[in-house]
Order: sequence, then C-alpha cells, then structure tokens
Amino acid sequence: MTFRIEKDTLGEVQVPEDAYYGAQTARAVANSPISGLRPHPALVRATVIAKKCAALANMATGRLDARLGGAIVKAAEEALSGAFDAHFVVDPFQAGAGTSHNMNVNEVLANRANELLGGRRGAYDQVHPNDHVNMAQSTNDVFPTVIRLAALALVEGLRPGLEELVAALRGKGQEFDGILKSGRTHLQDAVPIRLGQEFEAWGVALEKNLAGIDGALPGLRELGIGGTAVGTGMNAEEAYIGLMVSELVRETGFPLVRGANLVERMQNMDPFVALSSALKGLAVNLARIANDLRLLASGPRTGFAEIALPALQPGSSIMPGKVNPSMAEVTDMVAFQVMGADAAITLAAQAGQLELNVMMPLIAFNLLFSLELLKNTAPKLARACIAGITADRERCRRYFEQSVGLATVLAPYIGYAAAAEIAKESTATGRSIREIVIERRILPEEKLAGILDPYPLTTPGVPGEKHN
Amino acid sequence: MTFRIEKDTLGEVQVPEDAYYGAQTARAVANSPISGLRPHPALVRATVIAKKCAALANMATGRLDARLGGAIVKAAEEALSGAFDAHFVVDPFQAGAGTSHNMNVNEVLANRANELLGGRRGAYDQVHPNDHVNMAQSTNDVFPTVIRLAALALVEGLRPGLEELVAALRGKGQEFDGILKSGRTHLQDAVPIRLGQEFEAWGVALEKNLAGIDGALPGLRELGIGGTAVGTGMNAEEAYIGLMVSELVRETGFPLVRGANLVERMQNMDPFVALSSALKGLAVNLARIANDLRLLASGPRTGFAEIALPALQPGSSIMPGKVNPSMAEVTDMVAFQVMGADAAITLAAQAGQLELNVMMPLIAFNLLFSLELLKNTAPKLARACIAGITADRERCRRYFEQSVGLATVLAPYIGYAAAAEIAKESTATGRSIREIVIERRILPEEKLAGILDPYPLTTPGVPGEKHN
Amino acid sequence: MTFRIEKDTLGEVQVPEDAYYGAQTARAVANSPISGLRPHPALVRATVIAKKCAALANMATGRLDARLGGAIVKAAEEALSGAFDAHFVVDPFQAGAGTSHNMNVNEVLANRANELLGGRRGAYDQVHPNDHVNMAQSTNDVFPTVIRLAALALVEGLRPGLEELVAALRGKGQEFDGILKSGRTHLQDAVPIRLGQEFEAWGVALEKNLAGIDGALPGLRELGIGGTAVGTGMNAEEAYIGLMVSELVRETGFPLVRGANLVERMQNMDPFVALSSALKGLAVNLARIANDLRLLASGPRTGFAEIALPALQPGSSIMPGKVNPSMAEVTDMVAFQVMGADAAITLAAQAGQLELNVMMPLIAFNLLFSLELLKNTAPKLARACIAGITADRERCRRYFEQSVGLATVLAPYIGYAAAAEIAKESTATGRSIREIVIERRILPEEKLAGILDPYPLTTPGVPGEKHN
Amino acid sequence: MTFRIEKDTLGEVQVPEDAYYGAQTARAVANSPISGLRPHPALVRATVIAKKCAALANMATGRLDARLGGAIVKAAEEALSGAFDAHFVVDPFQAGAGTSHNMNVNEVLANRANELLGGRRGAYDQVHPNDHVNMAQSTNDVFPTVIRLAALALVEGLRPGLEELVAALRGKGQEFDGILKSGRTHLQDAVPIRLGQEFEAWGVALEKNLAGIDGALPGLRELGIGGTAVGTGMNAEEAYIGLMVSELVRETGFPLVRGANLVERMQNMDPFVALSSALKGLAVNLARIANDLRLLASGPRTGFAEIALPALQPGSSIMPGKVNPSMAEVTDMVAFQVMGADAAITLAAQAGQLELNVMMPLIAFNLLFSLELLKNTAPKLARACIAGITADRERCRRYFEQSVGLATVLAPYIGYAAAAEIAKESTATGRSIREIVIERRILPEEKLAGILDPYPLTTPGVPGEKHN
Repeated sequence: MTFRIEKDTLGEVQVPEDAYYGAQTARAVANSPISGLRPHPALVRATVIAKKCAALANMATGRLDARLGGAIVKAAEEALSGAFDAHFVVDPFQAGAGTSHNMNVNEVLANRANELLGGRRGAYDQVHPNDHVNMAQSTNDVFPTVIRLAALALVEGLRPGLEELVAALRGKGQEFDGILKSGRTHLQDAVPIRLGQEFEAWGVALEKNLAGIDGALPGLRELGIGGTAVGTGMNAEEAYIGLMVSELVRETGFPLVRGANLVERMQNMDPFVALSSALKGLAVNLARIANDLRLLASGPRTGFAEIALPALQPGSSIMPGKVNPSMAEVTDMVAFQVMGADAAITLAAQAGQLELNVMMPLIAFNLLFSLELLKNTAPKLARACIAGITADRERCRRYFEQSVGLATVLAPYIGYAAAAEIAKESTATGRSIREIVIERRILPEEKLAGILDPYPLTTPGVPGEKHN
Repeated sequence: MTFRIEKDTLGEVQVPEDAYYGAQTARAVANSPISGLRPHPALVRATVIAKKCAALANMATGRLDARLGGAIVKAAEEALSGAFDAHFVVDPFQAGAGTSHNMNVNEVLANRANELLGGRRGAYDQVHPNDHVNMAQSTNDVFPTVIRLAALALVEGLRPGLEELVAALRGKGQEFDGILKSGRTHLQDAVPIRLGQEFEAWGVALEKNLAGIDGALPGLRELGIGGTAVGTGMNAEEAYIGLMVSELVRETGFPLVRGANLVERMQNMDPFVALSSALKGLAVNLARIANDLRLLASGPRTGFAEIALPALQPGSSIMPGKVNPSMAEVTDMVAFQVMGADAAITLAAQAGQLELNVMMPLIAFNLLFSLELLKNTAPKLARACIAGITADRERCRRYFEQSVGLATVLAPYIGYAAAAEIAKESTATGRSIREIVIERRILPEEKLAGILDPYPLTTPGVPGEKHN
Repeated sequence: MTFRIEKDTLGEVQVPEDAYYGAQTARAVANSPISGLRPHPALVRATVIAKKCAALANMATGRLDARLGGAIVKAAEEALSGAFDAHFVVDPFQAGAGTSHNMNVNEVLANRANELLGGRRGAYDQVHPNDHVNMAQSTNDVFPTVIRLAALALVEGLRPGLEELVAALRGKGQEFDGILKSGRTHLQDAVPIRLGQEFEAWGVALEKNLAGIDGALPGLRELGIGGTAVGTGMNAEEAYIGLMVSELVRETGFPLVRGANLVERMQNMDPFVALSSALKGLAVNLARIANDLRLLASGPRTGFAEIALPALQPGSSIMPGKVNPSMAEVTDMVAFQVMGADAAITLAAQAGQLELNVMMPLIAFNLLFSLELLKNTAPKLARACIAGITADRERCRRYFEQSVGLATVLAPYIGYAAAAEIAKESTATGRSIREIVIERRILPEEKLAGILDPYPLTTPGVPGEKHN
Repeated sequence: MTFRIEKDTLGEVQVPEDAYYGAQTARAVANSPISGLRPHPALVRATVIAKKCAALANMATGRLDARLGGAIVKAAEEALSGAFDAHFVVDPFQAGAGTSHNMNVNEVLANRANELLGGRRGAYDQVHPNDHVNMAQSTNDVFPTVIRLAALALVEGLRPGLEELVAALRGKGQEFDGILKSGRTHLQDAVPIRLGQEFEAWGVALEKNLAGIDGALPGLRELGIGGTAVGTGMNAEEAYIGLMVSELVRETGFPLVRGANLVERMQNMDPFVALSSALKGLAVNLARIANDLRLLASGPRTGFAEIALPALQPGSSIMPGKVNPSMAEVTDMVAFQVMGADAAITLAAQAGQLELNVMMPLIAFNLLFSLELLKNTAPKLARACIAGITADRERCRRYFEQSVGLATVLAPYIGYAAAAEIAKESTATGRSIREIVIERRILPEEKLAGILDPYPLTTPGVPGEKHN
C-alpha cells in the first residue's frame, strides 16, 4: 500500500494514498483496533445527512462560501448514494464521544469536495474538514443528533416487520379461535381457553410494545444540534440552528424539533435509554412468546404437541428427522442480546460527566445493533414461523376434557372445598372431572351439560348461569 | 404461643390462636422463610381495596349476600385503617403468582368479617375466604391488578418529591446564572458555560424523567381484573367486571379502565417493565447528577471546589473535620439499586409461561422497593443537599479565564489549525489564551475584548460577531 | 420520647435518651430515611468483632489504656450476645463508604463501655468513639473488612444447606436410576436417558457451583485492615496490623491473612464481585433446575407429568385442588433476585474513585441479601421439594418407546439420511420407530432387540455393538 | 451467481456453485439473516480442530475407514491454514444450540474431503457430513466443547497483553514512588499517599483479575465431548471418548480432561458464566482505573492535572488543541460492553432446558466478543496510554501540603475533636494545617516537623512515633 503524508494538529500521519479519509481517521484506526467492526450504515448515513444540512444552513446564513458549500453538498450526496462506503472505517469502540467518527465523515467529505473543486486528497487547501464541513458544529452536538437520526431510521425499518408479526399472530388468533384447550398456570392444568385467545393475546402484547417504542420517539426527535461544544451554542448562530433543524426535517422527513435546552440535550442520554428500554420491553415479550411457542410445540411424542411449527432445517447433526423450533430460538437469542445491550447502555448513560457523555459511541453501537437484530427478526419470525403454524385440534380437545382445572366450574355450585375434593380424586384416579361429577350425581346431568358447554367456558361469566 | 387447628384442602394446619390469618397463610409462612421481609404496605393496602371493591361489586350483581358482603366491606375498612397490619405476614419471596399474599388478605378479611357477624376466627362458617372474599376473583387477575394500584399510589408519592427536586435545581439554576466558569468535556477544559446552566439542565433532565414515568402510567391503569384464572373471565360476570372497575376508580381516584384483552393483561408484564424502565431512566440521571455534584464539590483543596455541599454529618471516623457529599452518595446507591432491580424485573418478566407469569411477586417486590427508595431520596436530596449548595464565584471565574478551551473562540477568525497552535502553547506554558493572543497581536485588543465578553460566550453565536 | 443532647464536630444533636448510639448515628438516621431497613445481623456482628479485636490489639501494642480497652471488650461481648441489637439502626442506604454504620458501632460500644466504667451515655469522658473504639482504624479499612467477615460467615451458613440439596439430588439420582425415559433437546424428542441421570447431573452442577463459591473465598480472606484512611496505614502501627489479623482469626476461626497491598485491598471490590458472580452462577443453575422440575412436573393431565412434586399448599384461590410447584417457583425468584443484585454490585464496584469505593454499603446490602436468600432457600428446596419427588415410571417408559429420537440408533446401521426417513414417517403416522423398523424389515428383529435394549442406550457406545 | 441443487432430509436446496458448504448451511443462511456477522475465527478454528481429532479418533477405533478419515484430516488441515475462511458463513444468531455452525463445518470438510478423493462438491457419495465428519458426535457435545476451546485460545491471547498492562502499571508505580500527594476519599481531601502507590495498587488489582480468569479455566478444560446428543454417549464408544480427548490435548496443547459426568457437562453453562464473570471482574477494575486516570489527568487548567496522558489524536472537531484521554475512554466502553455481555450470557445460561441449552450460540458470541475486545484493549492501553504518562510532581506536592486531610496526623496527639476544629479552620480560611498548628503553637515545631515528614506519612504507623 502506498501512503500520503498528512498533518494535523499533533503532527504528521501516514494515510493510504487512495483513502478519502484523512489524518484524524488514520490516527483513530491506529488507536482503536478493538472490535474490528465498522460503523452501522445508518449512523454513517445520518452523519452525512447532518453535514449536508449544515452546509446548506451555513450557506444560508452567509457564513459558508457558496462554492465550497456546494461542493460539500455534492460530496454528501455522492456519499449518500454509497460511493464512499469503504471509507467510513472507524471502529465503533473508539475515542470517547464519537470525535473520530465525526472527523471521518468531515474528512471524507472535505477530500471529495476538494476533488470536485479540482484539488487533490489530503490538501484541504479549499475545503477544510473542521473549518468548513464541521462549521458551526461540534462532535458533541452532532454525534447525539446523528444517533437520534439513525435510531429513528431503524425504528422505521423495524415498524413494518413488527406490524407484520402482530398481524400474523392476530391472524392465527382468528384461525384458531374455535380450538378449545386447557389453560395452564404454573404449568399446571387450569381452566379452559381457546388456542386463538393465546395467539391474539400475544399480538396485543406486541402491539403495546410498538406503542411503547413510539412513546420513546419524541425524545429522539428533540435535537440538541446547535449546542456545539458544551450545549451553549458557541460558534453556532441562532439563525443557523433554526435552519439546521429545518434542513434535517426536509432531508429525513422526521418531525424533528429544536431542543428547548441545548445543554440538557447534549448531556442527557435518556432518549437512548428510553428507546433501549422500549426495545427491551419488546424483547421481553418476544422471548416470552418464543418460549411459549417452543413449549406448545414440544414433542412430537414427549411434549405438549398442541401446535407444530414449520420445519426450516434439519434440527440435529446426530438425530435424524429431528426438527427444532429454530426461529423461536433465534428470537430468544435476539431478545437476550437486546436485554444485554440495555444493560450496557445503562452503564454508559450513567457514566456521563458534566457537559458531555463520552460513552456515546457505545450507546450508539448497542442501540443500533439491537434495532438491527429486531428489524431482521420480527418479519422472519412472522413468515418463517407464525404463518406456518398448524394446530392439533384433537389433542387440544383431549386436554380440555381431561384437565383437572375443570373442577373450577363446580365451585360456584358446591363451594371451593367440595370442588377441591373432586379435583383431588381426578388427579389420583385419572378420571375426568365430568366423569366423577356424573358418577357421584353431584349435579343433574342436564345442568352439567350446560355448565360444561365448551365455548362459554372461555368467556366471562359463571358457567351455566344465564344472566352473565 | 397457643394455636388453633384449621383445615384446608391439603389437611390440618396449626394457626396462632390470635392470628386473623388462617391455614393457607400459615402454610405460606412455613414454606417461605426466605427473606424475613413483609409485604410493602402499599401492596397490602391495594389488595384490601380490591377485596372491598369486589364485595361491593358482587353485592351489586346480587351474587353475594348483603349481610356477608357488608361484613367484608367493614372488615376491609378496618384493615385500611391499619388495624390488622401485623397480620399480613407472607414473605415477598413466596409461592409463584402471589396466591399466598392473596389468600392472606382473603383470610384476614374473612376471619374479621365472621367476627363482626358473631363468629370466631378459623371457623369460616359464614364468610369463606375463597367463596366470598375472593368471589369472582383469582389471584391471577387480582395480583397484577393490585401491583398496578400499589405502583400508581407510590408514583403519586414520588411525584411531589421529584417536583421539589426539579424546582430546587431550577432555583439554583437561576441563583447561579451569573457565574461564569469553564465547561468540561472529557473532563478536559472546554468552552465557557454558566454554573446556572448546569443546574438548569439537570432540572430539565429530571423533568423529562418525570414525563417518562407518566408515559408508563396508562399501561398500569388498564386493568385485567375480571379475567380470573386465565384471563377468559370464567366465574366473573360481565356486570361484575364493569362494576369492579368503577368501584376501584371510586376508591382510588385513579383513572382506571377495563383492559381490552383480559388474557393479555394477565400475562403481559410490560406495564411493570415499562415503569421500571422509566425509574431506571430516572436513576441514570440521578446518578449522573449526583456524580457531577460530587465532582464539582471535590476538594476543598485538592479538587474542583466550584461548589460546596451542605455538611450533614462528620465524614470520617479517622479524618477529623472531613465532610463528605453524603446525600449525593446515597443517591448514587439508590440509583444503582433501581438499576439492579430493573435487571431482576426483566428476568422475571421474560419468564412468564403461557397464561400466567408466576414471577409476579418478585416483580412487585423490586418495583415497589425502587419506588419506595426514590420517593424517599428525591425530596431529601432537594432539601438536604441541593437547597444548601453554595458556589465559589471567584474560583469559577479563574477557571473561565485560564481554560485552554477558550482557544475555540479564535477558530472562526484564524482557523482551527492556527488556533490549535495557540492552545498548545497555553497548555505548555501555563499562560492564558488571552495573554498569548494579546502578546502575539493575533487580534486587535478591542476585537478580542468583544470576543471574550463573558456572558455572550455562553449563548449561541460566533463570539464577537454582531449578527447572531 | 425524651432526648439527650450530644455534640459532635458539626454541633449539637438530639439523641433518644435511652439510645446506646450517639450523635453521628442520630444524624445518619435523620439523613437517610431511605429504605426503612436495618443492617444485616451478620454485618453488625462482624463489626462488633472487629472492634473487640482492635481493642485487644491496641492494648497489646500499649497504645490503648487497659482499663478503657477492657471495657470496650466487655461491651463488645455483650453486643455479640445480642444485648444491643435494637441500637444498630443505620439504614443500609446511608452515607458513602459506611461511616455511619461504623460510627453506630463505635458509639454503642463507647457508651456501654463508659457505663461499665461508671459513666453515663452520651458523655464520652472516658471512652471516646473515635479516639478509643475506632483507634488505629478508619471506616475505610474497617468496612471492607467487616463485609468480608459477614460474607464469610453467611457462606458458612449457606454451605450445609447447599450440600444437603446436592445430596438430595444425588439421592434421587440413585432412586430414579432405573427409570428410562426420552431425553429432550430443543424441547423435542431426543435419544433415551434415565431420569436418575438428570437428577444426578443437577447435583453435579450444584457441586461445581459450591466449588465456584469456594474459589471466591481467598479474596475475601485477604484483609485490608490496617490500611486506615487510604490504605497507607497512617495511624496504624505495624505491630497492630499483625495483631489485628491474628485476633480476627482467633475470634472468627477463618483463615484470614494480611493483604499484601493494603491500598489495593481498600479500593478493589473484586472479592465481592467475585463472590457475587459465584452466587449468580449458583443462581443460574438453581433457576435452570427449578425450571426443569416445573416442566417435568407439568400436568397432571396437560403436561409432561414425569414426576410429581410434593404438595405444599393449595395452589389457587379460584381453582380448587390445584397444586403448584411452589418451592421451585420461590427458587426461581430468589435466583432472579441474586442476578439483579449482581447487576447492582457490578455498578457499585465500577464506581469506585481513587482511594475508596464509597458505594460499599450498597455492595454489602446486596451481597448479604443474596447470601441470606440462598442460605434459606437451598435447604428448603431440598426438604420441601426434592426429597418428596415421586416419578411416574410408566409414563416415562411410554415416552421412551414412542420418542422419535429413537431413530438415532439406526443411523450407524443405515445412515443418517435413511434413518431420517423413518423418523419422518413416525412423526407423520404416530407409529413408533420400533414398529416401523419391524414392519419394513429394516433390521433383523433380533438385531433390533439388541439395539433397543433400554439401559445400554443411555451409556456410551453404538447401540447393538459389542465392543464399546 | 450460479447454483447447484443439494438435497437434505427436508428436500432440495440451492447452494452457490462454488461453495464448500452445503444444503444445511444454505438453509441456515436463508433462515438467519439476523446480524450480518460471521463466526469468530477462533470458534471456526476450534470446530475444525474438533473434526480433525474426531476423524483421527474414529480411525483409531476402526469405525472410520482410513481413506475417508485421511481425507477429512487433510481437509481440516487445509481449513486450519485458512483456505476456506470464506465458507464459514453462518450468522452467530442462528438456530439453537449451534447445529448450523456445526453442519457448516461438517459440510465444508466433507466437500473438500470428497474433492481430495476425486469427487465433486455437493455429491457426498464418499464422505458424508453427518455419517463421517460428524461421526460419534452431536452438535450438542461438539458445540460446548468448541466454545471451550475457542475461549481457552482467546484467554491465551489475552494473557500477554494483560501482563504487559500490569507491568506498565507497576513500572509507573516505581517511577512515581517518590511523588507525594494528597489521597482523596469521597473525592475529598484525605491523608497523603504516593502517586506510585496508586499505580502499584492498580497493577495488583489487575493481577488478581488475571488470577480470577485462571480460576475459571479448569471448568473450561473439563470436556463433555463424547456425550453426543443428550450426554449419555449414545453412538460414541468409550474408546473414542478417551482418544478424542487425547487428540484434542495434542492438537491444542491445553490440559484438557474428560468430564466426570457428561450429562452435566452438556447442559451446565457454568464454565462460560464463570469465565464471563471473571472478565466482568476485570472490566470492573479496568473501568475504575480508566476513570481514575481520566480524573487525575483532568485539566489542564480546570481539573486535578496531577498526571498527563499521552496525546493520541486531536480531541475535538471544534475545540482546537484539545487532547482527550482517548484510550481510557475506549477502555471504559469496552468494560461496559463486557458487563452487558455478561448480562446476556446470564440470561442465556439460565434459559437451558432439560438435556440442552439451546442458547449456546448467544453465549459463544458474547463470550468471544468480550475476550476479543479485552485482548485488543489491554496492550493498547499499556502502550498508548500508561507507558507515556507523566506526572506533575510540583502540583502533587502542593496538594499534599494544602490538603485538609493532614489534620488526621494531629488526632493521636490532640484527639479527634480538637483536630476537627483545626480542619474546619483550614477549610474556612484556606490556610494549611501546618500553618495553623504552628501559629497556634499546638505542637512544638520540631515535633510537628517529625510528624509531617512526608514519606513516613504514607506508610503504617502513628506519624512522629518512633516505635511503629
């Protein structure tokens, strides 16, 4: 590899000849060979958008020469089309606060802008990464802003898949509405429920998680851009701030607003904590649903076997014909990762000091990784698992009939204590509640038939009573 | 101690002679000598309220005899006045789902109701704990409902203290608005900020946390009561469900509503996860603020010493005259506890299976403990710490003048690279930015005076420019 | 309540007339009404022991007058007998580093020592809490030392119950060794296993957790006592340090040693992190075992129902005759609490700054709470659950015969792909692997009998091969 | 891209023409487009080693034809040289238990072995992925084994960097041994300490963390290989198991042993929990040290400024000349990631069910990622930060002299209360303890000189006393 020599405020640095990035990025690459990963594309995209908007705003206030500004905008547009993807190279585990990431984007756009203006990479004689591309900005207001934009974009990417998952669950809720089975609480026989009610409830739960995510968005939309280095706005004109927010709205389509208190916006990581918490809430329910699916599909011979999940791949390298609940398992693992990421984000968020939280790169890494995982998992779970689930109606009916939980219907008629005696006999002998009640003539058969009429048992009311 | 013998569905049990609780509570006490703790009073209170409301609702539907129901209501009112506090004895670490807690309340109220009707404790010949006090209910719908009510009550208890804390911070924000200092990012000299801006930003941050908590309340207000054992409502009449919610609204004053899907309400712990997350978000900012206070008050000779916290108690058993930031430290520890509790709640919430989450007692324990800690800490922090903070204006001014971060004001005039040279000289020689600029005649002195005019340096705009 | 007036370095304080504690404790009580809890008895005991040992050591070096020292020792012995339990009153959520707790003990012992010398409470004219009881000590070396001692004592309390639990599991391992069943992986039919192997494996796992706990003890036994305020040992003579460690060994019976680097011992919380991690490891396996027990005992009609857990208490307030896996559920909740505590301890441990970690009270609270919970849960789980488990041998046999996992035995003979075809047919038709093999004459019946000889299927070797 | 058609037990699958992997890998890629990541190279390497060793063991027992076995060994050796790196493509977020990863390696080696034997990819007519490469193995015993091997390899990779870091800290401990300063507890002035003592203590702390990691290794070295599908060893001969362990020892050089209970080894994730906990313990101390470095280096004008960290890169995009503690910040973020990973691992480990923990891929991902991060961070922190730290001896001396904590030396002479009065005067007036003592003639000047002799103040003993 051949190199060019660049100079920054600390001295000379070797930069790969064909790199669009410059000295500070090269230093960052050398200083942080930590994870081997690269920035999430959504974060790069958001940062480039911020630079484009800043150039437009700075031209509008008259502070940035139109020729230079135009070149920056052009370079940014090329970057958004993916032209420089290989040049955004800073490890997510980088120097605090994201300065290296910000400078990486500043340098790529400056070098490309200079090229567009007839210059060459590394010269910075016309467009300077700090003075022009970063004009009126600091990493400290840019970085929390672009995490916001990237997170908002990924939430939009997550939404349709999550809605599809909700719809798939609700669809199965309808499909299985007529399948009576025994409920289980504490994993023990309980009163009847319809299989469809279980799927429906899962769908409702995830809908609420989606609402929870939406509840976290306002905090993300309130920007601290314009606060510059410590939130006070030094070097950013009032006019610029307003223009910058408008440009970002125009560019992203998000209903962004200017933060009421820019000092607070810079240092308070709560919008990310809140979104991560909402994702954790989603993860909790995804794990729970995945676990329930795995339980209901356990078998085929030695488990509950109420439902069957679609076979996606051979399940074992040693056990022929084995089929595992693969998508549910992937979902569990994604859920646990999101919970672990939330722990890391919490640690990072509480570690802020004074004007800045230098742990932002870690917050960005985990938040965007969680979003990415969920975005990819939700529609896959819907399509490759939920949509293909079939039910074993006959087995469900047997559980319904044999469940010791049926003794509960007797309690309003003969009292809790007497009903418990019948339940105990059923458990001991293996005979069904119905059989015992008939044999012992505890209730008239006709009455019992009314009481054990299946569907009403799964709706509010005292079984066998008219006036519910 | 003398005992009476009671009988439940598993056989005979010894119960202390004077206990208002009965057989199942006695079993639970014997089975769970785990933490040695007792239920949070707010949880007991909420459960008693639920029982009172259920008796009223069941009388209104005609299912519960008015004489028995009246006695239950009377017993509940006595309990709410604190008469039986010593009789709610089940360890928070108890059998899954809270059955023991629910039965403890059922038994105390049944025994007292029977006494009121002329009977004696342990007989249950008139009012039965399951058939009457628990009528139309299951632990499975009662327990998540009463956690909700207890949490809502404690949130109301937390609110005024948190508002007081916000007001105290904002008050100091105003008081210290004229105190110029150096900002610090990465704990390194940065551009100027006013001490008041820091306090103001903390106040704003906590206000947003309060809004975050409020955002979690709707989920708590949507009740699953009436779902009974598995959420389907078996043994709970439609009319009862509506009446029950209305009675709870009347009794608590909270804007409670009936859940749209009672199956979901029973099994989905997200309302608790969401509230815990919001409390964790608050904890993150409390920890951050406490840490910043400790940092700014570090000294008196070897630290930042910009502010002084009120002396609450001697700080050391060995170092005479030492005064520590005690309330800030307590705040940190409370914050960490809340974060740990959130981890436990997450684990419990994801462990739900099928119709029920049997880990609810653990969720209740941690959620209510977090609320209790925060409720007690917030006003104490406001009064015993924030309200008494004093500032060292002179030391702040010195930091303002000497900060190497002041080089930033030069960048718009001489460029980033040239300004960096001056910053490096300042760092190396210990001379202030102002001195070097004057000596080297980098800017006309008059211009420099305009640029370094203190207050505008802490507001948006390019220092020294008119048209900001 | 009547009060006496005491004076400390910050001024006058009201102290309840009959309190053995003094001014600083009274301040702490007023300053930290946070959790309403009191210190764990093991922490009080350990602190009193440290004070007794310090008095003995200080008398031995000649620094402490024998009359005063003798009175302190006598007071400490009374305290160890429980005489002043009501006077150790500082909330675990207290000022950083535990100064208030340390002073509480200093004051109680000083007041009692003065009484023994003919003085009165609150006077401190002979024995002074700081100058005599705390002689050669700082909270900063005493508090981490007494957390160590308390933790070591509770580990000793945990050990027998954990060993009992291991023995109970191993006992069931032997009892159930002849019960053949189907293994389950991914909750799907797998190859055969004996029920006893499952219990045995759980016992082995917990044994390893006990070894893990033991692996954390050396760090706890290496004391930082003598480091005083910052670990350098100012005000603590070399001779005192050696004597202090010997006295602590004599008093506690633990193999304690003097820390090689007292500065490190004071600030590094790793011994607590390591013990908490080991407890978390134990909790992980306890949760896993509890979950497996709940799964294997699921039913009686709608679950796996391979085993039955003893009935401890009625399981439902609405469903008569329901019996739940209560002790397993308690175990799960304890396990989750321990995991949450570990998160809190991690947060506290990483928050140490420079010479001290002021978050120690939170570490103590959570570590001792975890130990307390586990100490009480392990033997209860052994006695009230494991010991009474019964197995359904017949049902296990049916699972063994019907499991689709049996196709695995065919693979060495007919290859993975052909065996998979038979497994698929079994799943589709419900017929057993054996039936299909016989019907299709895939293997000679005699050969098959050898292959399917049950017991050898659960030991290493290719089924049906002689030379394993 | 052109494809070939392969067939597995579920039907036909398109596989890229030039892929060495086969049908099951192609299915896994299609089923799990979740994270976009690939397996850690150490995990691939370990799995290939396991396959090579299994082929050798199976040839030795005579079960595997030498021609086929030889080809597998040859293919494995090519793979170890990196020839097929591009063909190990399964997302870490994959079907439970790692079957897809295991089959990926089985398929690559089978295809290459067949090529070596003159066949073509996708035919499997000679060497079959399941029947030969996976002979006597199950994913269920292979995957936990190869996580162990990969983790052991990465621990070996971490060790030298961590030792280098310890040495760097100890080196600075010696270099700075003569620099007297004021200790700080609660961030408040405390008694003196030497700067070297602080660095030394950090080195000792990390040494103990390294010992903690070593303490987790025995569990990793005890293998469950040979347990096959459920730990009972079906299809794995006794002789094979012994040979397999010996081959793995020979191939890796690790002191591996056969597990005493293979059922336990398969399902108990404690070895990974224990290693992750030890890494978390290391992370706690790394974070603490990084935070202390950032604090001591705070400034240059507005902070403690006792030390200066080497300048690695320009610290701000807006503030010229700013230099940040970049490596310390990276270290903090790595530490938080490791703590978050530990939370995810805990969740995964407790989610095991019966014979298997299907969450192993998530455990592997997080454990290996943590190891990778720490392996890269430790030596970088040593070289790019610790090694270049310089101290400001003069400033340290000033802190030493002015610290109010010096009042502690007076307590043994004039008592705690009187010393506190002097401390309070010092705080109020800004005069040093020494000045006040001299002015007030509290102690003879000669005595005071002895007491305040700097170096002895940082070693055990009562200052000014001979007989320490």
